[in-house]
Amino acid sequence: MNDHLARLPRVEAPDGALRDAGLLRQQALTKPAGSLGRLEDLSLWACAVQGTCPPSPFARPRVVLLAGDHGIASVTSAYPPEVTAQMVRNFLSGGAAVNALAERAGAGVRVVDVSVDADPAYADDLDPAVARRRIRRGSGSIDHEDAMSADEAMAAFELGRALADEEIDAGADLLIGGDMGIGNTTPASALVGLLTGNDASKVTGYGTGIDDSRWMRKCAAIRDAMRRGRPAMGDPLRLMACIGGADLAAMAGLVLQASFRRTPVILDGTVSAACALVADRIDYRAKSWWLAGHRSTEPAQGLALARMDLEPVVDFRMRLGEGTGALIALPVVQAAITTLAQMATFDEAGVSNRP
Amino acid sequence: MNDHLARLPRVEAPDGALRDAGLLRQQALTKPAGSLGRLEDLSLWACAVQGTCPPSPFARPRVVLLAGDHGIASVTSAYPPEVTAQMVRNFLSGGAAVNALAERAGAGVRVVDVSVDADPAYADDLDPAVARRRIRRGSGSIDHEDAMSADEAMAAFELGRALADEEIDAGADLLIGGDMGIGNTTPASALVGLLTGNDASKVTGYGTGIDDSRWMRKCAAIRDAMRRGRPAMGDPLRLMACIGGADLAAMAGLVLQASFRRTPVILDGTVSAACALVADRIDYRAKSWWLAGHRSTEPAQGLALARMDLEPVVDFRMRLGEGTGALIALPVVQAAITTLAQMATFDEAGVSNRP
Repeated sequence: MNDHLARLPRVEAPDGALRDAGLLRQQALTKPAGSLGRLEDLSLWACAVQGTCPPSPFARPRVVLLAGDHGIASVTSAYPPEVTAQMVRNFLSGGAAVNALAERAGAGVRVVDVSVDADPAYADDLDPAVARRRIRRGSGSIDHEDAMSADEAMAAFELGRALADEEIDAGADLLIGGDMGIGNTTPASALVGLLTGNDASKVTGYGTGIDDSRWMRKCAAIRDAMRRGRPAMGDPLRLMACIGGADLAAMAGLVLQASFRRTPVILDGTVSAACALVADRIDYRAKSWWLAGHRSTEPAQGLALARMDLEPVVDFRMRLGEGTGALIALPVVQAAITTLAQMATFDEAGVSNRP
Repeated sequence: MNDHLARLPRVEAPDGALRDAGLLRQQALTKPAGSLGRLEDLSLWACAVQGTCPPSPFARPRVVLLAGDHGIASVTSAYPPEVTAQMVRNFLSGGAAVNALAERAGAGVRVVDVSVDADPAYADDLDPAVARRRIRRGSGSIDHEDAMSADEAMAAFELGRALADEEIDAGADLLIGGDMGIGNTTPASALVGLLTGNDASKVTGYGTGIDDSRWMRKCAAIRDAMRRGRPAMGDPLRLMACIGGADLAAMAGLVLQASFRRTPVILDGTVSAACALVADRIDYRAKSWWLAGHRSTEPAQGLALARMDLEPVVDFRMRLGEGTGALIALPVVQAAITTLAQMATFDEAGVSNRP
């Protein structure tokens, strides 16, 4: 691992004592022990990551939406690459799925152009700051060239960390890393293939909905990328430079920095899970701050989550990205917290517990 | 089937044309077609049951919590029967799981003592009306006696229908039938066993968390009840009188009347699913107004849902009842509706669709 990563702090564990306190409280509430199932687990996780019991619903959850283009998209995606920039404009106008779901869940959305392949002024009328911290214009076509230079990978990773810091310093108490980038499941799947020891054919999915012949081309591209990336497996940032993308490196930095800052993260889909897996190679303790929001239809996502022992909250056959899967899990987490925070105990309510 | 049931109106189907309109709109929204998975299905269901496109989040969802005791409880439950009345007080004080989850989901809660085995004044300090419409004090021990008389079964069924009417007339646009009653999974499981053609051993679960020896006694009681109930299978109200309970008959009336009134229902756990299955025998069209909120850990619940072809929204290993499983699905439904209602189309957002 390179010198920069070796100098990072260690991730500290969430508070186990508060988790235990949460469990004691759960067992005293007016319901049969265990009868709220997964909600009880989630409420204990909230105790541990918040360091309080009872926990409170997250007051300022934030989606950081990282957008970037990928040279491989023209080979592997059903959509034209210009859609990435168009969707950034859609996010800024509030018309995308992430906007609707974030509003419903009480989460804010911040959009950052990390590596979109468009004139930097393309969204100036909506938000002149959106492309101001761009690392590069598009990432390379990873089947035959590096996604970016080592310096760019470092800068993108540090951008992700800085974004996490900025959000947390502004009061965010839960982060969701959203992704937008035509073709971005290709580098994500290649990363998952390498880091979980699976063949390209096992990690290649249908993305936004490609047909079988394009699936075969995507699978071949992922196989080529995995071959190119294998020598870099021991160095997460070199791996990102080789077969990732600037937006993906930023996502890895974001979720890792959140764990340094003792701030929980709800992971989303394929890109989110793949980048979390890369960050897990930097510090395996980080994942105790992460919750898997949903199970995507993409095989790579499930393999990445399984490798990290993260059990998705819901399975709705979603495959959109943007943070949407995490945002559908957030109300479940908030509801789980509410039960532990608000319910009466057997003693308080004068209800007889089982003998 | 008895004369009373034969005189009921027919359930009308939800609006298929609006569902089709919803599908057209879904396909025009700025996301790959199908990428919101189950959320898309839920949004189309909302179009059909609301008769509008785009649909709106439900404005006045209501939980009607039906409480009742069961003579069989002392044999089959881990909790003492007095807990039913104590929990009614807890509901009225706002200390139960249903209160916390309903508040979080924006739903109101109404508590009705249908057949609690307690002095009718037990909750007068909290709500003197709660027991005013009680059908009887506890239901019979169904392993060896009828749950109630035919007249009481009819009265309980009509109480459930009246409660649905009252709520809908007061503006409710979605109903959840909650249950509270120590021992109530015993009659529910017996009903499901008979109506799905499964052995007692296949439908008997661990309820609130009984041990293996009590499970065997519960299974034997369910087998005895099923033997007693078999001759009544062709008449849903006679079946309820024989091996159901007054609270269960009311639940069947509630969910059926909602469908007469073109008002959607989110089903909850074992009691809810069993009563829906009885109502389904009265009018098989009713279930198009019902959504299965969650998959419970009780086997009878899953068998009842499968018989009605209802796919649960979430699976959180919950087994509490009270409407809690439906209330955890409600925010998902609301989020699904929000995507269809708020997202921009490709044309509106100036985003290129796939070629």
